[in-house]
Amino acid sequence: MNDLRSLTRPESVAVIGASKTPGKIGYAVIENIKSSGFKGEIYPINPKEQEIAGYKAYPTVRDVGKPIDVAVLCVPAAAVLPVAEDCGQAGVKHLIVITAGFKEVGKEGRELENKLVETARRYGMRIVGPNCLGVMDTHTPFNATFAKNFALKGNIAFISQSGALCVAILDWSLKRGLGFSQFISIGNKADLNEADFIENAAEDPNTKVICLYLEDVVNGPRFIEAAKKATKKVPVIVLKAGVSAAGAKAASSHTGALAGSNAAYDAAFRHAGVLRASTMTELFDLAIAFTTQPIPKGRKVVIVTNSGGPGIVTSDAVELSGLEMSRFTPETLAELKEKLPPTANIHNPVDVVGDAHHDRYKIALDTVVKDPNVDAVTVLLSPTAVLDIQKAAEVTVEASKANPDKAFVASFIGGAAVEAGVNYLNANGIPTYPFPEPAVATLRGMVRFGELRRALEDGDEWVFTDVDREQVKSIFEKVKKDGRNLLLGPEAASVAEAYKIPAAPSRLATTADEAQKFAEDMGYPVVLKIASPDIMHKTDVGGVKVGLKSAEEVRAAFESIMENSRKAVKDARIYGVEVQKMMPKGDELIIGMVKDPTFGPMIAFGSGGILVNLLKDAAFRLASGITKKEIMEMISETKAYTILKGFRGQEPDDIPALAEAIARVAQLCRDFPEIVELDINPVFAYPKGLSALDVKVKLAM
Amino acid sequence: MNDLRSLTRPESVAVIGASKTPGKIGYAVIENIKSSGFKGEIYPINPKEQEIAGYKAYPTVRDVGKPIDVAVLCVPAAAVLPVAEDCGQAGVKHLIVITAGFKEVGKEGRELENKLVETARRYGMRIVGPNCLGVMDTHTPFNATFAKNFALKGNIAFISQSGALCVAILDWSLKRGLGFSQFISIGNKADLNEADFIENAAEDPNTKVICLYLEDVVNGPRFIEAAKKATKKVPVIVLKAGVSAAGAKAASSHTGALAGSNAAYDAAFRHAGVLRASTMTELFDLAIAFTTQPIPKGRKVVIVTNSGGPGIVTSDAVELSGLEMSRFTPETLAELKEKLPPTANIHNPVDVVGDAHHDRYKIALDTVVKDPNVDAVTVLLSPTAVLDIQKAAEVTVEASKANPDKAFVASFIGGAAVEAGVNYLNANGIPTYPFPEPAVATLRGMVRFGELRRALEDGDEWVFTDVDREQVKSIFEKVKKDGRNLLLGPEAASVAEAYKIPAAPSRLATTADEAQKFAEDMGYPVVLKIASPDIMHKTDVGGVKVGLKSAEEVRAAFESIMENSRKAVKDARIYGVEVQKMMPKGDELIIGMVKDPTFGPMIAFGSGGILVNLLKDAAFRLASGITKKEIMEMISETKAYTILKGFRGQEPDDIPALAEAIARVAQLCRDFPEIVELDINPVFAYPKGLSALDVKVKLAM
Repeated sequence: MNDLRSLTRPESVAVIGASKTPGKIGYAVIENIKSSGFKGEIYPINPKEQEIAGYKAYPTVRDVGKPIDVAVLCVPAAAVLPVAEDCGQAGVKHLIVITAGFKEVGKEGRELENKLVETARRYGMRIVGPNCLGVMDTHTPFNATFAKNFALKGNIAFISQSGALCVAILDWSLKRGLGFSQFISIGNKADLNEADFIENAAEDPNTKVICLYLEDVVNGPRFIEAAKKATKKVPVIVLKAGVSAAGAKAASSHTGALAGSNAAYDAAFRHAGVLRASTMTELFDLAIAFTTQPIPKGRKVVIVTNSGGPGIVTSDAVELSGLEMSRFTPETLAELKEKLPPTANIHNPVDVVGDAHHDRYKIALDTVVKDPNVDAVTVLLSPTAVLDIQKAAEVTVEASKANPDKAFVASFIGGAAVEAGVNYLNANGIPTYPFPEPAVATLRGMVRFGELRRALEDGDEWVFTDVDREQVKSIFEKVKKDGRNLLLGPEAASVAEAYKIPAAPSRLATTADEAQKFAEDMGYPVVLKIASPDIMHKTDVGGVKVGLKSAEEVRAAFESIMENSRKAVKDARIYGVEVQKMMPKGDELIIGMVKDPTFGPMIAFGSGGILVNLLKDAAFRLASGITKKEIMEMISETKAYTILKGFRGQEPDDIPALAEAIARVAQLCRDFPEIVELDINPVFAYPKGLSALDVKVKLAM
Repeated sequence: MNDLRSLTRPESVAVIGASKTPGKIGYAVIENIKSSGFKGEIYPINPKEQEIAGYKAYPTVRDVGKPIDVAVLCVPAAAVLPVAEDCGQAGVKHLIVITAGFKEVGKEGRELENKLVETARRYGMRIVGPNCLGVMDTHTPFNATFAKNFALKGNIAFISQSGALCVAILDWSLKRGLGFSQFISIGNKADLNEADFIENAAEDPNTKVICLYLEDVVNGPRFIEAAKKATKKVPVIVLKAGVSAAGAKAASSHTGALAGSNAAYDAAFRHAGVLRASTMTELFDLAIAFTTQPIPKGRKVVIVTNSGGPGIVTSDAVELSGLEMSRFTPETLAELKEKLPPTANIHNPVDVVGDAHHDRYKIALDTVVKDPNVDAVTVLLSPTAVLDIQKAAEVTVEASKANPDKAFVASFIGGAAVEAGVNYLNANGIPTYPFPEPAVATLRGMVRFGELRRALEDGDEWVFTDVDREQVKSIFEKVKKDGRNLLLGPEAASVAEAYKIPAAPSRLATTADEAQKFAEDMGYPVVLKIASPDIMHKTDVGGVKVGLKSAEEVRAAFESIMENSRKAVKDARIYGVEVQKMMPKGDELIIGMVKDPTFGPMIAFGSGGILVNLLKDAAFRLASGITKKEIMEMISETKAYTILKGFRGQEPDDIPALAEAIARVAQLCRDFPEIVELDINPVFAYPKGLSALDVKVKLAM
C-alpha cells in the first residue's frame, strides 16, 4: 500500500505557479490553502514575486530548501515537465497536477503525460491528475484546489473522475448542508488512481463512507484488492458511468453475448463488496445514511405511520424492492394492542391513526424497535391538526439513539408544517425524504451493502490440486503449432478432462476402424462429427450423424461424413471424425467464460441449450478469487436453479457437482490466461453428475 | 356522464354544522369557503346561531328557500341521515360528506353509509365521501374543505383516496410553489368515485393533467370508459397503492399464477391510456412536466451539456430507460461543427465543454432542436468560472419557446451558483431536477403517455361473427347438469371448435370400437387419455398412452387405460377415454384467461409448455375491448416473439393465426362470463397454423 497520508494531511505544500492575480488558478489555489486553515508550511513558487498571499515566494521549488510533502502544479502544460524535474530534485513527495492539456487532448498530450509519469517515477513521487480540480481534506484542513469554496466538514470521502462534477457537487453540498472528509478530483489518473484513493480514505479516521464517481477502472485486480480491504472498514459506493456503452464489442461466443458490457463491473463490484449506485441521487442518499445510521442486520423493515395511504405506498416499496415487511412477535403485538387505541393498526405497517399525538409514535416506535424481526425502521408522518410534529421528530430520534443497531429513515410529508421536524431529524442523523419511496430505496442499498460485506467474510478461492496442467499445456501448444486458435472437439474434451470437468468422452478417429474401436471403448450409442477447422456448419453439410448404435452404423457414418465433408468444402483441412459418446439428455445449462479487459476472466452460469441468448438467464462472477459461496450464489440467482432444485416434483440435479465444475472451469481460465473464450453449452445436469456436451475453447492468437 | 360542474363550480353552498368556534370542522369549512373568494351564495346551517362568518344562518337547510348546489356536511355521523333527508327535500344537488364514522369503522358504519346512499338516490343527489377532506377548485374559486390552506392556483387536478395524503401534499405543494386546478378528497367513495372526478376534471378548462392516488377502483368498466375519454384530452396519471398485495389469491391455473395481483390494473390502465406512476415523486414530476411541456412525438432525446461526466450519466439513463439517443442528420452535424469550437463534442451528448459561455448553449440548442431526430431535449449544466448561468437559463427558455413541439427538461447541478438559473427555468415552464436521472425519468413517462394515447386511436374490439354460441351454451349446460365445473378434454375441444380456435381434434370414446373409429376418422397417430373428473394425475395412474399408430394399439390402449384407472382410483366417475389426434410439435405457447374482480376477463399470452411458470414470459390485456393492435402488441412484448419471428434462421410461425386465436379466446370469455379460468397450454405454433393441445376451461360453480 502507498502511504498517501502526507498527500491529504501534508505538513508542507508548495504552490508552483502561485499568483497574486485574482482569476488565475495559481491565485485561487494558494488562497484556498490559506483560507482553509491549513496549519503546515506554505511555499508559493513564482520567480517574479517576493511574496504571495503573505508567504515568502521562491523562484523555484529547489530554492525552498525544506522538506515538501505536496507540490501543486498550476503552470502551463509546457512547463510541467521541467517543474516536475525540479520537484524531484527538491525531494517533493506528491504532485497535484491541476494543469490540463495531457491525455485528454490527444496523442501529444498523452506522450507528455507519459513523460510526466516517468519523471515522477524516477524520483519516487506520486501524481494526482493531471487535469484535475485538486484535493481537499476538511479535517486536516487542506484545500489544494481552485474551487470557489471549501467543502463542509463531514465524513464522506468523495472521489471523482469528473472535475466538473466535483465543482457542481461541491456547490450543491453547501446548499444541502452536506459535509465531506475528503473531496478528491482524480483527473486523468496518470499515476494515482481510484484504488489508491480508496485505500487512503479507508485509512482516514474521519471517513465513514467512500463515494466514487468513475468512468473506468485503471487496474482491475488492484481496484478489487483495495476496495475489498476498504469495504471491510467502511461502505464503498460507486456510481459507474458509461453503463450503456452500446454493446462494446461484437460477441463471438454465447457467454460473450450474455455478458454485455456491464457484467464485469457488476461482478467486480460484488466481489469487492462495493455497492453500486444507479443514480446520483442514490449515491448521495446512501452516503448520507451510512454516515449516521448503522448497516441493517437483515431485510426486515417496520413502518410506523399516522395515515394509511403513505403506509401502503411504503409497504409496496418495501416488497417491490426485495426487502421484507417485519412480522411481529406475539409479545410485540400484545404490547401494541395494550398500549395503542383500538382504531390503530398494530400489524406492520403500524398505523397510529390520524388523531395520534406524539406519544403514540413513541409507544409504537419503542415497542416495535425491540422486536427481533425488525432490522430497520421507516417513520412516516402526515401533518394533522392535533400532532406536534417537532415532538414526533424528537421521539423518533430518541428511539433511534436508544437502538443504535437498527437503521432509521423517515419521511415527514409536507411543507411548512413538517419543516422544523424534518430539520430536527436531519440534525440528529436520521435521513429524511420528501416522499417515502426513496427512504425505502436507501434502506435497500444499506441492506445490500450489509449482504455484500457479509459475503466477503467467508471463503477463499476454490482451488483443486488434482488438475493436469501439463496436459492442457501440451494440447494448447499443439493447437498453436497447427496455426489454429479454436480447439477441435476432442482437444477441448481432453482439456476438460485434464481439469476433471466431466466432458462427454470424445476421440478423434482418422479411420473407420479407429472410429469403431473408440465407439466400442466408450459404449454405444455415439455421435460422429466431422473434425475440421474449416467447416462451421457441420450439420448442414452432412457432417454429423447421431444415435449410432452399432459398429456397422459407425463405420458407415464415418465414410459418409468424410465424403460429404470433402464434397461440401473444397480443400477443407480435415483432421478426421470426432467420435463422441451420446449422453442421456439432462437439464440444459451453460458454463462459460469471457475475458474482460479490466477484470480478467469472468465466469458465466445459466440456462443452456439453443435458447441461451433468448432466455438470457445467466449469472456472472470473476474467475479470480471465486469462492464456493460465490458459486453457490451464482447458481441460485438463475432461473435454471428452480429446475436444478427439482421442478414440479422431479428429482433435484447434482448441484454440488455443478458447483465444482464451475470452480474447475474458473481455475482452468485462471491458469491459462491464453484462453480468451470458453463455452460449455449445453452441460447436461443429472440427479447424479453431469456431462459437458459441447466444449468450445478459443485461444489468443 | 354526470354533470359535476355544479359541484366544483357551484353558485350556492350550504354548510351544515357550520360553527363559530375555531378548531371545529364546521368553522374551518365556512371560513375556507369565505376566504377562498367564493363568489356564490353561502348559507351556514346551525339551529343555534343567527349568523356565522358574516352570513345569515338557518336552522335547517329546508329553511333557506333558495336553490342550493352543494351542501357540505360537518355534522356527527348520527345526524347525517336526517340532514341528508332535509337536503333532499330542499333540492340540494350535491352533498360533500366530511363526517367520518361510516364504512371505515366496520359493519354498522357500512350500513349507515348504504342508507345515506339510498337517501341521496331517492332525491337524485350525488355524494362526495363520506370521510373526506372535501373539494377545492382554485379557479372557481371554491374551497369546501377543512384544510389549513387553499391550494395555489394551477392546472393539475389531484384526486386522492387518502385524506391524510391530501393534507400532506397540499402543505408540500405550497412550499414547492405547485398549483392545482382541482384538489379532491374522494373519501369512502360511497357514491361518486374516481371515474366521476376524472370525467369532471377532463371537462374542466383549467385542468391540463389529472393526477390520482388510488387504493382501488370501484367499477372497472366505468373507470376505463371515463379514463379513456379523459386521456384523449389530458394526461391521466395514477399512483396505484397496494401493488404488492402479497399474492391476493391462490392461483389454480397457469395463467392465474402468471398474472399476480397487479397485472389487471396494468392492463386496465394501459387499455385506457392511463399512465402509471411508480412513486409519489414520479407522479408529481410528471404532473408538473405535463402542465408546461408538450408530449414528445417519439423517444429520441438529445443532451446538451458543458461537462462530460453528467453527459455520460444522462446517456446511461436514456438508454437504460428505453429512450433513444438522437443521432443527428449530416446537416446538424455540419452546423455544429462549423459553429462550435473543435474541443466541443458535436455528437450526442453534445458537449459545449467547460470554457463555454451561454452563447455556445444557444448555438447547440438552436441547432439540435431543429433536427428531425430530436423529440426531447435535456439541458445539463455544471457551474464554471466563465459561464453566466442565468443567461444559459434564458437561452434554454428561448429555445423551448421557439420549439413548442419538443419537450425540454433540465438539470443544472449545484447550489447557490445555479439557483437563479433554476428558478428562471421553473418560472418559465422548464422542469428542473437537482440531478440528471429524474429528468430522464420524466421524459420517459411523457413519451410513454404519448405512446399510450396513440395506441388508443386505432381499432375497435376484434369481433368474429362466425362463432357458434349455441354449441358452447349447450356444452356448458351439460357440464353444469353433470355437477362439474371443469370441462373434460373433448368438451373443451368442442368449445374451442365452436369459436374456431384451432384445437387438436378430440373425441370421447366409451368403447374400444369407438376409440378405434375416432382414431381412424382423425388419422394416426393418436393419444388416449382417461376422461374422469376424479383422476387428476392421469399419467401417474397409467391413464395416458401416446403415439398410438394403429387400430390394434388404440384398442389395447383403451382397455389398459380403463383398467388402470379403475384400479387406481376407487369409485372414480369414468366418462370414457379421450381420443386426441397427436399433433406435430411446434413452438410451445400459452393462451389463457383469468378473471379479475374489478376489470373482468384478462387474456394472457406467453411462452408455454411445462416451464411456463418458470419463465414467467407473459403479457396481459383485458378481454373487453381488445383490439387487433393490442393483440399484436402483447405478442411482441414476450420473449416468445423472438422465436415466433423465426429464431436463428428458422421459418417464422403463423403470427396472424395466433393473433386471431387470442382474439377468439377473448371473445369466448366475453360472451360467457361463467368461464372463470381458461388455459390453453401448450399451443403449438407452426409456420402455417397452430394447434391448441390442452384446453382447460373452468366454469363458475
